[in-house]
Amino acid sequence: MPDPQVLETTQDRLIEKDFLSGLKIPTAPYAGVHSATQLSEAVEKIGLPAVLKTRQLGYDGKGQARIAKGGDPMSAWRLVQSAPSILEGFIDFEREVSVVAARSRDGQVECFDVTENEHREHILKISRVPAKVSPAVATQARRIATRIAQAFDYVGVLAVEMFVVRAGRGHAVLVNEIAPRVHNSVHWTIDGASVSQFEQHIRAVAGLPLGKPVLLGKRVEMINLIGAEVNEASRWLSVPGAAVHVYNKGEARPRRKMGHVTRVWTTAKR
Amino acid sequence: MPDPQVLETTQDRLIEKDFLSGLKIPTAPYAGVHSATQLSEAVEKIGLPAVLKTRQLGYDGKGQARIAKGGDPMSAWRLVQSAPSILEGFIDFEREVSVVAARSRDGQVECFDVTENEHREHILKISRVPAKVSPAVATQARRIATRIAQAFDYVGVLAVEMFVVRAGRGHAVLVNEIAPRVHNSVHWTIDGASVSQFEQHIRAVAGLPLGKPVLLGKRVEMINLIGAEVNEASRWLSVPGAAVHVYNKGEARPRRKMGHVTRVWTTAKR
Repeated sequence: MPDPQVLETTQDRLIEKDFLSGLKIPTAPYAGVHSATQLSEAVEKIGLPAVLKTRQLGYDGKGQARIAKGGDPMSAWRLVQSAPSILEGFIDFEREVSVVAARSRDGQVECFDVTENEHREHILKISRVPAKVSPAVATQARRIATRIAQAFDYVGVLAVEMFVVRAGRGHAVLVNEIAPRVHNSVHWTIDGASVSQFEQHIRAVAGLPLGKPVLLGKRVEMINLIGAEVNEASRWLSVPGAAVHVYNKGEARPRRKMGHVTRVWTTAKR
Repeated sequence: MPDPQVLETTQDRLIEKDFLSGLKIPTAPYAGVHSATQLSEAVEKIGLPAVLKTRQLGYDGKGQARIAKGGDPMSAWRLVQSAPSILEGFIDFEREVSVVAARSRDGQVECFDVTENEHREHILKISRVPAKVSPAVATQARRIATRIAQAFDYVGVLAVEMFVVRAGRGHAVLVNEIAPRVHNSVHWTIDGASVSQFEQHIRAVAGLPLGKPVLLGKRVEMINLIGAEVNEASRWLSVPGAAVHVYNKGEARPRRKMGHVTRVWTTAKR
C-alpha cells in the first residue's frame, strides 16, 4: 500500500499540482477554486478555454467541465456542484503519454518505455509503444517519472500521465496527473515486455532486484475492450501476435473497461 | 487427457517406432529386443555403436545403455535388467531440435518455431530459437509434427523430438520421440511468444480458435536451472530481457529440474 502522504497528494488535484510545482515539474497553469468568486478570479488569471475539475474523485472525465472561450464559468460551477475544484488552463497538446516507473526499497528506479495514449470520450482506448516522440522528449518524460518516485520515497510502481506540447522549436512535457499504482496504459507490458508492471511492483515491495524490462517485438499496441466490445473478444484469438485478456467483470455496461487486447508486431512500420 | 491410443503408442518405444514407420516418417534404425538371443540378432542387423533402451519408463537418459563399437552387448542387457527393449542405431546427429504442434478439435494445426536443444548429461540444459537449421529443414520438422498430430486425431499440444543429420549434400530429419504434452524445451513460449504452449493447449481442448504464435524479439533462449543452480536464480532477476521461473519443488537434488530462465534478445546476433 502506498504511503498515506502519497495518497493525500495524488487524491487531491490541488495538492498534487502544488507538489509538482514544488519540484519545478511543469504542469498546466492552475488555480484553486472554492467559491464562485474564486472561479471568476481564476478565469481572469488563467484565461479561457479552461477546464474546471473537482479536487477529488474524478476519473475517465467524470467531475470535469470545460469552459469554452467566451463561455459561462457559472454553468461549469453548477456542473461540478460547487465542489472544491481547480481551474486548469486548457492544453492544446500534440499527444498524451504515460510513463510507469518502479522504485525499489534501496532507491533503484526502472522506467518502462514511454507509452502513447489515445482516448475516446475521455476513456483510454489505445496505447502504443514506442510513443512517437523525440529521444529528448522520451528522456525528459522518464526523468520526470523518476523524480516523482524519488520525491515520494516511493516503493513499487507508479504512473505519470503527461501532455507533449509544442514549445519554441521543440516540445515540452507537462504532467497531467500521477497514479500511484499499476496503470491501464501500461498493461501492454504483460505480453510486450520481458517483465510486466505487475511483476515489477511485486519485486519492488518484496525487496527483490527490479527487472530491466526489454520491449518485445518492434512495437506493441494495447486496445481496451469497452462495454459491448468485449462480446467480440474471440475474434482476436486468431490474429497473429495478439493476446486477449477478458476481466470477467459481469455486465458489459457502456463505458466500462471489460478487457484488453495486446498486439505485438515484429516490424517497425505502423 | 490424451486418447488412450496415443498413450499406448508413445509410452512404448517399440510401438512408437512402428507407428512412425507406418507413417513413413524416418527414425534411427531399430529392432525389438526381448531376449539375449534377439539382442545378438539386433546387433548383427543394426551394427554398432548402438543404444539399448527399455521400451517403457525411460527419460533423461534413464533405462538406456550405449554399446560401443566392439563393446559387449550383454553388459548393456544386464544394465537394462533384461527388460523388454529396443536396440537403436547410434545417430551421429548435427543438432537436436523439437517442435510443439497444437491441434484443435476441428483439425487446425499451429506449430511453434523449431527449437534447438542442448543437453548436458542427458538432461535438457538450453533451448534456443530460432534453431540453426535451413528453411527446408525447419519446414520438414514442422510437417512431421503436423503429420503426427493429424495421424493421432490429436486435440491439444504435443512435442516431437528430432535429430538433424547430414544426408547427401543437405540434411535429413529423424524423429527421436514423441511427447504427447507440453514440453520443457518449449517453455520459452511463456515469455518469448505471443501465445504460450500452455494457453495453446487450453484453447485446443476448450474448443477455442488456436493462436497464431509470433516469436517476440529476434531470438530467445531458455536455460534450465538444474539441481543447486536454482540457488543462484536471483542473479538473473536484473539481467535485461530475462524472465525467471522457480518451480518451488523443494529439495534441489542433483539432476532435478528446479526452474528455468528465459532470455529474449532484440538483436539477431548470437
